[in-house]
Amino acid sequence: MTDTATHDHNHNHADGESHHGYITDKDKYLNRMKRIEGQARGIHKMVEDEKYCIDILTQISALTSALEAVAVGLLDDHLRHCVVDAARLGGAEADAKITEASQAIARLVR
Amino acid sequence: MTDTATHDHNHNHADGESHHGYITDKDKYLNRMKRIEGQARGIHKMVEDEKYCIDILTQISALTSALEAVAVGLLDDHLRHCVVDAARLGGAEADAKITEASQAIARLVR
Amino acid sequence: MTDTATHDHNHNHADGESHHGYITDKDKYLNRMKRIEGQARGIHKMVEDEKYCIDILTQISALTSALEAVAVGLLDDHLRHCVVDAARLGGAEADAKITEASQAIARLVR
Amino acid sequence: MTDTATHDHNHNHADGESHHGYITDKDKYLNRMKRIEGQARGIHKMVEDEKYCIDILTQISALTSALEAVAVGLLDDHLRHCVVDAARLGGAEADAKITEASQAIARLVR
Repeated sequence: MTDTATHDHNHNHADGESHHGYITDKDKYLNRMKRIEGQARGIHKMVEDEKYCIDILTQISALTSALEAVAVGLLDDHLRHCVVDAARLGGAEADAKITEASQAIARLVR
Repeated sequence: MTDTATHDHNHNHADGESHHGYITDKDKYLNRMKRIEGQARGIHKMVEDEKYCIDILTQISALTSALEAVAVGLLDDHLRHCVVDAARLGGAEADAKITEASQAIARLVR
Repeated sequence: MTDTATHDHNHNHADGESHHGYITDKDKYLNRMKRIEGQARGIHKMVEDEKYCIDILTQISALTSALEAVAVGLLDDHLRHCVVDAARLGGAEADAKITEASQAIARLVR
Repeated sequence: MTDTATHDHNHNHADGESHHGYITDKDKYLNRMKRIEGQARGIHKMVEDEKYCIDILTQISALTSALEAVAVGLLDDHLRHCVVDAARLGGAEADAKITEASQAIARLVR
């Protein structure tokens, strides 16, 4: 086992790789990120073609909303798995996980 | 007992009142909210006096940031107490608390 | 004349006072700011009474939205009056007004 | 001329194409959007590799900030060109441009 993960709650796989198995529905997130990549490419093309500025801004707002939905979903998964697991262990570990989550929330809320 | 609290994790006090004792440093939040009220009054006065629009917008941005800091702080306290308590109990209660917290985060992030 | 306004586009009134007369519907903004002050006081009271954290966060989200609506409305008025006036004059004055408006937008968008 | 642009202020080029020539520094925006596409691909890869949730959220926050900077920049260009041009013409055209810009700002601010 060559696992060198620095975070808790990894699941060790037979192939020696380490994963954070907290993502409830990984395919859903992969599909969403694929769509977000497509949206980013579309905005690049709109700038290249000098599309009307307001139309580009509308697409940027849509992309930002899509990203926020991914972030809120991942954070929910994170609270549901990593934070809950840490809470059960209690002590400094639980405190550190919550501080880390709060800081991530602060960055998202700004 | 006139208390009709509808939420869990209240702490019943000798005086028959019920409180959500999750706020780590209540005076800090009370002071911040006092300052925020003052900021709101100041913006009202700026509109009344027809101050320069950009200066009013600057004050609105400052007030919004102050509110976001209160929200992130309260959410941290909430995770640290209510959610951690629920996590220890586990089951549907823990799930419901996390769903509720995630929805609050989604409203803050938008 | 005690007026010491430092911004352009003031309108001098017979009483010697100077106002930025760009606010299309001042009473609307005064009423909105009164309501916002009330919301801030309500949140202060909720913290004092140790209401349920999630309920306080819901009120903070509502207050933030109300503030954003005021900001967007004031910015619209500002563009419609000060910026349009400056645009007609043209030159460095117009450029400076747009830079100033863009910086205010950046602070609101974050 | 096959030009079917539905927006004003286009510049007709000798090759019969129509562009909204408002983007001051097009290469800057194309480079930024290229980088944003790369960031989106990176986040997709992080989800695929099940990287630590908080690290993914940090990258999403960075991507959102990069998008906001593009939006604020494009809006500045838009105000500086389309809106200023409309303001000089005045009347309903100017009003419509400002309403359109304000709605785009409201979507960005939320």
